Amino acid sequence: MDEVGDVRIFDTTLRDGEQSPGISLNLKEKVEIAEQLARLGVDVIEAGFPISSDGETEAVKAIAETVRGPVIAGLARVDPGDIDRAAEAVATAERARIHTFIATSDIHMKAKLRMTPAEVVAAAAGGVERARRYVDDVEFSCEDATRSDPEFLVEVFRATARAGATTLNLPDTVGYALPAEFGALLSYLREEVGEDVIWSVHTHDDLGLAVANALAGVEAGARQIEVAVNGIGERAGNCSLEEIVMALRTRGAARGLDTTINSREIARTSRLVSMLTGYAVPPNKAIVGANAFAHEAGIHQHGVMVERTTYEIMDPHDVGLDGSKIVLGKHSGRHAFAQALEDLGFSLSKEDVQKAFERFKALADRKIRITDVDLEAIVVDEIASDEDEYELVSIQVAGGTHMSPTATVRLMREGELIDESAIGDGMIDAACGAIQRATGVEARLESFSVSSVTGGIDALGDVTIVLAVGGDVDGPPIRRATGRGVSTDVVEASARAYLSAVNRLAHLTRRAPEAVA
Amino acid sequence: MDEVGDVRIFDTTLRDGEQSPGISLNLKEKVEIAEQLARLGVDVIEAGFPISSDGETEAVKAIAETVRGPVIAGLARVDPGDIDRAAEAVATAERARIHTFIATSDIHMKAKLRMTPAEVVAAAAGGVERARRYVDDVEFSCEDATRSDPEFLVEVFRATARAGATTLNLPDTVGYALPAEFGALLSYLREEVGEDVIWSVHTHDDLGLAVANALAGVEAGARQIEVAVNGIGERAGNCSLEEIVMALRTRGAARGLDTTINSREIARTSRLVSMLTGYAVPPNKAIVGANAFAHEAGIHQHGVMVERTTYEIMDPHDVGLDGSKIVLGKHSGRHAFAQALEDLGFSLSKEDVQKAFERFKALADRKIRITDVDLEAIVVDEIASDEDEYELVSIQVAGGTHMSPTATVRLMREGELIDESAIGDGMIDAACGAIQRATGVEARLESFSVSSVTGGIDALGDVTIVLAVGGDVDGPPIRRATGRGVSTDVVEASARAYLSAVNRLAHLTRRAPEAVA
Repeated sequence: MDEVGDVRIFDTTLRDGEQSPGISLNLKEKVEIAEQLARLGVDVIEAGFPISSDGETEAVKAIAETVRGPVIAGLARVDPGDIDRAAEAVATAERARIHTFIATSDIHMKAKLRMTPAEVVAAAAGGVERARRYVDDVEFSCEDATRSDPEFLVEVFRATARAGATTLNLPDTVGYALPAEFGALLSYLREEVGEDVIWSVHTHDDLGLAVANALAGVEAGARQIEVAVNGIGERAGNCSLEEIVMALRTRGAARGLDTTINSREIARTSRLVSMLTGYAVPPNKAIVGANAFAHEAGIHQHGVMVERTTYEIMDPHDVGLDGSKIVLGKHSGRHAFAQALEDLGFSLSKEDVQKAFERFKALADRKIRITDVDLEAIVVDEIASDEDEYELVSIQVAGGTHMSPTATVRLMREGELIDESAIGDGMIDAACGAIQRATGVEARLESFSVSSVTGGIDALGDVTIVLAVGGDVDGPPIRRATGRGVSTDVVEASARAYLSAVNRLAHLTRRAPEAVA
Repeated sequence: MDEVGDVRIFDTTLRDGEQSPGISLNLKEKVEIAEQLARLGVDVIEAGFPISSDGETEAVKAIAETVRGPVIAGLARVDPGDIDRAAEAVATAERARIHTFIATSDIHMKAKLRMTPAEVVAAAAGGVERARRYVDDVEFSCEDATRSDPEFLVEVFRATARAGATTLNLPDTVGYALPAEFGALLSYLREEVGEDVIWSVHTHDDLGLAVANALAGVEAGARQIEVAVNGIGERAGNCSLEEIVMALRTRGAARGLDTTINSREIARTSRLVSMLTGYAVPPNKAIVGANAFAHEAGIHQHGVMVERTTYEIMDPHDVGLDGSKIVLGKHSGRHAFAQALEDLGFSLSKEDVQKAFERFKALADRKIRITDVDLEAIVVDEIASDEDEYELVSIQVAGGTHMSPTATVRLMREGELIDESAIGDGMIDAACGAIQRATGVEARLESFSVSSVTGGIDALGDVTIVLAVGGDVDGPPIRRATGRGVSTDVVEASARAYLSAVNRLAHLTRRAPEAVA
């Protein structure tokens, strides 16, 4: 089963990645990301944790039904209820996997599970057996493996392999491992467990070592790596898909260690995930950051001009960084627009194409040249605003150093118009205040960021806002929602983002709490 | 010389870090960062590359004169002119170091240097000898070491150690190394060169392996690590100071591998560098990101509530993350304000305290509670605007979905008022257009980002703008400048940032081109 050169990429952007604070993707957005992951060529998509909510179950089902190519996995604790729900969610997939887990470290077993080691072994094997009744492809993980007793890990992995697990995963849940010891632990487990399975690694970046630990795992014989696009995920995030893929392509391929990822889709995948999650990619991010292939020092610039490889170990074209292309202009019609969307790989309903076309025409009035990256931003904004209760009809603002910033908004809710105005500390504050009055939803602003979609003075502003409610002592638990808005005007983009977050908060409070490892 | 537990931190935030596109720190900002690095307890501050410009020389001189504690290093190629200039710049330091380098990989020697290996060895030894005439503490680096012939590295390092180099540095200039081979290379070199020196490593994050490579170096006997705060630097950046320091503290200390960094200053250092460089820290950044200690999944939140260590391997207080504290209010006077600045570790002139106090009073009118983080932002904004030609007197804007965004600005230049107005695609665009008309400086907007300094609806907006001029074929080389602006109103903050970038562009075009490795 262990073929050299065949390192599988298990993408958990939609599960562990989506657990980043403030991210709440709707069903359409999840399907859009899953389709792009299929285009990128990942081997497995972990589509979600079905038991955590009905919305999550629906999203996993939708991905299992529509996305072809990769294995579709659903996460489940070893509890029967979790496994049954995961099985139901992935049932219609071309190839389905159930990924089940239980914690094996002393601290987790004692403080969290309140189970004895023997009970954990029995529960783990029982969970795998139950999962195998539904599917042939079952993955099992020991949560917090790197802080677990290695001998106990052997026992649990052996029991679960014998119960039918085909992939055994070693998660460094808290980002604690060092590469050398992580590789040694995997070697020890492969040797001691001795079953014919695919070994997998799942690493976190708390000490900046996620990629190095994954690499050490592969060098020790792991043939599956669990990753997230842009390295998002709990806390400091998961192993970044683009970094480990390009590390293997650049340095591992010669030794037969490579993936089958189509690296030219990396840049677009990164942009899509960044836009939909609201997690901007920092300029100094490896592979996909704006500076990853920029050379600043005179000596470096001179070197690259003489011979590119003096300071570049990868070709930016190989990760799909070809610069943005102008695809449409002010006079482009509906047909050219629909064709451009298709070329970009979007598969939208006629209705969505029409909505996106209207936004495009409004934008084209302000901006002469529309690039592929602009188009992506518009479409993604439309996908995001799909389930909205309130819609922004118009906004008007004024302010300055010597006058109070004022905003007036007009919203539409189920065919009814609502007008409101407010003053604020700044114009965005005023606009958000007016929306707060109009919707009656009071939420705390947790973070606010704007970036430009492309360069140039007429660039689209892309605003991300995180709102939160609850979290008081004795009150309901904290709920966060991320909203995005795109416009050439930052105040309008902010109002759109704020309203989108308000719409999602309303949506979120209708879905159940639980989520996981 | 090799003491267990004594891993030195060599900070290159002000040299390699400042080479990130768009960063251009002025002298005051550099001194402020150097003072904070001293407070953090770094062993060596690489203050700059003196030969690259007169401004750079002046900044290194200012740091050498005023900052006490760390060794102050200046970078120099092995050329006599470089070394003489570096020696002059660091002359007044309490403890001075000259760091000299030459490339040793075949591709660099052939394509860039056009020198034979024998010429490179002679130039390297000559450079070190010359540097030793000025100072006892000389560091030598083989640029692009990880793509150099190991036997040739032995030859060059042996020659430079015999010529008097006391620290030998192994840079992975292009971020190409894998941890195991990097550690093995260092072990081989230590063994073969066999001189009594401190071995150092300098790593880059192009494949996401900077921290892991640095760690592998330390495990192989390196006792100096070259780092930058927030991992900034050429391309994907340098090894991040906070990540390697906390990786050693969390996992290395038990084996006697630790630094003497005061980790409780990490969060503030990260904020200061982020604010002054305009490089935001992404939420999923290890150690200092907003999510680094956030737990999102229900299972994780439950675990942490029962027992913190189930999902946390570090205590956030140990890196100085104690939450922002309210330090001043609307009625705080000049004395309380000055005291609060002193408590935060700022050492400002009376004039600067007065300027910052005026900004504080204007802010306090809009915002009731002023936290330590707000104060930092105000002071840092004032430090940044020190050498400005144009000053923003007032701004007034209006716009909306059904009216053209319009802005009117009033600027002051050498006592003279300039009024201008413009319409734009958005209000920020209109404000920038008005400033462009008023100053006559035409530049391309390369990037634009806003983040909120603290949470809450009355948060300060912190805008960063990168402007560029030149770069056309046959024209002058490209010049970029970063501008920051802080205000409760995002359009005002943007206008301040734009004007600050315009002021810096004017300043930049007055300084010379060259910069380095």
